Amino acid sequence: MGYNSAMRYLEKLQAIQQKNDSWLCVGLDPVPDRMPLPALQWDDPVLPFNKAIIDATADLVCAYKPNLGFYLQWGAAGVVALERTIAYIPSEIPIILDCKTGDIGHTQAAWGRGALDEWGVDAITVNPFVGEDAVRPMIGERQDKAVYLLARTSSPSAWDFQGDLAAGEGLSAQVISASQRWQVAGHLGYVVGATFPKELQIAREMAPEANFLIPGIGAQGGNLEAAVRYGPAGTTGPVINASRRVIFASSGEDFASEARIAAEAYRQRINQFRVSTDGS
Amino acid sequence: MGYNSAMRYLEKLQAIQQKNDSWLCVGLDPVPDRMPLPALQWDDPVLPFNKAIIDATADLVCAYKPNLGFYLQWGAAGVVALERTIAYIPSEIPIILDCKTGDIGHTQAAWGRGALDEWGVDAITVNPFVGEDAVRPMIGERQDKAVYLLARTSSPSAWDFQGDLAAGEGLSAQVISASQRWQVAGHLGYVVGATFPKELQIAREMAPEANFLIPGIGAQGGNLEAAVRYGPAGTTGPVINASRRVIFASSGEDFASEARIAAEAYRQRINQFRVSTDGS
Repeated sequence: MGYNSAMRYLEKLQAIQQKNDSWLCVGLDPVPDRMPLPALQWDDPVLPFNKAIIDATADLVCAYKPNLGFYLQWGAAGVVALERTIAYIPSEIPIILDCKTGDIGHTQAAWGRGALDEWGVDAITVNPFVGEDAVRPMIGERQDKAVYLLARTSSPSAWDFQGDLAAGEGLSAQVISASQRWQVAGHLGYVVGATFPKELQIAREMAPEANFLIPGIGAQGGNLEAAVRYGPAGTTGPVINASRRVIFASSGEDFASEARIAAEAYRQRINQFRVSTDGS
Repeated sequence: MGYNSAMRYLEKLQAIQQKNDSWLCVGLDPVPDRMPLPALQWDDPVLPFNKAIIDATADLVCAYKPNLGFYLQWGAAGVVALERTIAYIPSEIPIILDCKTGDIGHTQAAWGRGALDEWGVDAITVNPFVGEDAVRPMIGERQDKAVYLLARTSSPSAWDFQGDLAAGEGLSAQVISASQRWQVAGHLGYVVGATFPKELQIAREMAPEANFLIPGIGAQGGNLEAAVRYGPAGTTGPVINASRRVIFASSGEDFASEARIAAEAYRQRINQFRVSTDGS
């Protein structure tokens, strides 16, 4: 099975964005003390909880994004649930493993074998601190996979080291600028938080072709209109992520149907901004 | 069970450094195509391989450092082996989980619950890209735990973004300088590669009290003498890591005894430099 026999990442993403008319990604981030009450009564609640969320939202999303940290909090048992969750997601929907890994070359290669080959996820988030070594082992040769490189994270402490991207200066700007010269077979996109709309605009100008994974529109209060305005590149829309506000929409028996209602509301808000932003 | 009832991290590290007369850390990084031939004939070789390495080296080391990426390459089965490896390591030996995680606050909190509480490892490597949010959830309140923050990584692409630490400039210097003002209950140390000896010297000047985790002395060809000269802080020695050159010292039936010989040779070389460096 060659790396390059499958559909390219952006083609797969574009196909599901059109089919589901959606740029919404749902973050599958289970948290013990926020799980709905009925799920807390199950043994090993993570997998059945995720299955219920996936069943309720699979026709409303363009991607799912499980974050490894939320599974590791249950130790290996959580990672077993993650592996089974990944296997359960319909194959037409891209899976972005959010793990922000960023190690030197031979270690990143191991991460790639695990996440991209063994688990078969379509994309992975990568931390740029160690430089090009963090990216090449992932998508240097895999045409059908994508890396989302952290450019501007969504939380306030982004200011500690990431610099003034709105002014085109500092670490985030360096990361976007330098990484676009890296030669990779797969797709190199960027994580840019919706909590920094001006930075999102500059990032789009600096990387006109790249797909953006945009977190922070839910509980973190980011700017959804900016995500829609500066998110698209060419014919592919951004991947706009909401986690807690969807999967924990209700703590009762109706958690799955309420998650569907929340996901549908986000999808509609995104699509309304799409109309007002570019008339399409 | 309070966070703070146990021995502080540096006390635990210092105790085993004295008992084993060792600053050597062995990296438990299994790689399928480098596993010794007999291990490849076992079902689920990772755990028994690790147990054999631990049995052969436990009196020669001051820490073990499993890197999560090398376990995830087997999917969840690898993480099960990691969990059992962690449980197998004698409790007097600090365990550093190398995962270079660096996410926003509530995600880092989940990583902390998994690695530090559920698995009970003593320390974790953290990537500083997102800023203080990556560290506070780990050791803000856990007095008995440590974070090793990436300051200068060991591979050549460190130059992409980490700047000129030897001149006291750039991202690595900013990370060391800023992070020392963060208020944490646990110990904040730094990862500084032995492949950059001048940078190691400057890092020590900038962070005189911090414990250093120093990779790169094995297969990467780093400067062991510089690691010994600039590694120590106060009465605690650095944690000097070798992985492949120890655990894959032989591919035959004698892999464990050869790993012991390799570990003993590193321990002795380190101790010889300790004598020549400071006469102690």
